[in-house]
Amino acid sequence: MTSLERDTRQDIVDVAERFFRQIGYQKTTVADIAKSLRMSPANVYRFFDSKKAINEAVAERSMGELEALVTAIAAEKRPAAERLREILTTTCRLNSARYLDNQRLHEMVACAMEESWDVIRAHVERYDAILRGVVADGMAKGEFTAGDARTATYCVRAAMIRFCNPLLLTQCGALPGPGVDEMIDFVLAGLGYRAAAG
Amino acid sequence: MTSLERDTRQDIVDVAERFFRQIGYQKTTVADIAKSLRMSPANVYRFFDSKKAINEAVAERSMGELEALVTAIAAEKRPAAERLREILTTTCRLNSARYLDNQRLHEMVACAMEESWDVIRAHVERYDAILRGVVADGMAKGEFTAGDARTATYCVRAAMIRFCNPLLLTQCGALPGPGVDEMIDFVLAGLGYRAAAG
Repeated sequence: MTSLERDTRQDIVDVAERFFRQIGYQKTTVADIAKSLRMSPANVYRFFDSKKAINEAVAERSMGELEALVTAIAAEKRPAAERLREILTTTCRLNSARYLDNQRLHEMVACAMEESWDVIRAHVERYDAILRGVVADGMAKGEFTAGDARTATYCVRAAMIRFCNPLLLTQCGALPGPGVDEMIDFVLAGLGYRAAAG
Repeated sequence: MTSLERDTRQDIVDVAERFFRQIGYQKTTVADIAKSLRMSPANVYRFFDSKKAINEAVAERSMGELEALVTAIAAEKRPAAERLREILTTTCRLNSARYLDNQRLHEMVACAMEESWDVIRAHVERYDAILRGVVADGMAKGEFTAGDARTATYCVRAAMIRFCNPLLLTQCGALPGPGVDEMIDFVLAGLGYRAAAG
């Protein structure tokens, strides 16, 4: 791919995401996207063979941004509990900024869940691998109770789902529940972490 | 209400639930329900003024069954950790038997979430109160780390949502994740519970 082609691809993803956000995934057509870029639909199809493929590129970019942020935090030279707290806080902040109260993006996410499950699954597996590195590190250094890092990581992710799943974010917002920091404290306790006395 | 009226009400709820399960909430009409009971639609409307009201009765009955089960467990004379484990196991088992892989019931739940939020919210509040009694008891007896029972209860419920929320049950089933027992162990650890050495 030439750099011009990369730019065009990028432009298509930008415009598509704006349309999905503003008028919704279902109502957006490839023709809308092409027109907004002063391109022919045929030219858009040179880059993406369907609207589904564009949606996958939008989702992958957004997930990729989160993965890059948490990878950087995971690599920092700080106690595992601190890194884990920051990873979870960052994940919740990013997802709620993106999805909270944006009904149109819910439609995009629901379609990705229906049509592009592999893309979402691959993201979850990459995210788990980053998280697991931090959990295993904390176990090895005695910050967390030693145990099966894989299972513990699954539990951490499952416990935080209320704050991360795009659809739940809005649904659960209307119910009494814990704050993000309270939930992270609970998760750290679940890992056997005890803060040093102050 | 006479006992005959109670029976009729009950019959309507039974038949409605069967229709919702078999052909879906949207496609079921009050006329279908009436016909199946050899009643006139007007007679059904004497008991429920809309399909929404019937759906609420179906939801309330199902939620009421769960509440009765967990209330009984909460009142048993056993350690709080054991009661909590059984309450959570029972909740997960009941919800997965009911909702897992039943796409039609998802439609009913989605409608209840949209149209009858108060009914769901009231159930969650009653469920929380039962859970909170057990959590507070465990804190008072030193089984769990002392703290704010209300917040701890919110965290317990939020942590278990993957196994209880009708829509997540199916969605998350396709992702790697913890088993119910593993998640309950994690939740107990989050409460500061440490099993006595064997």
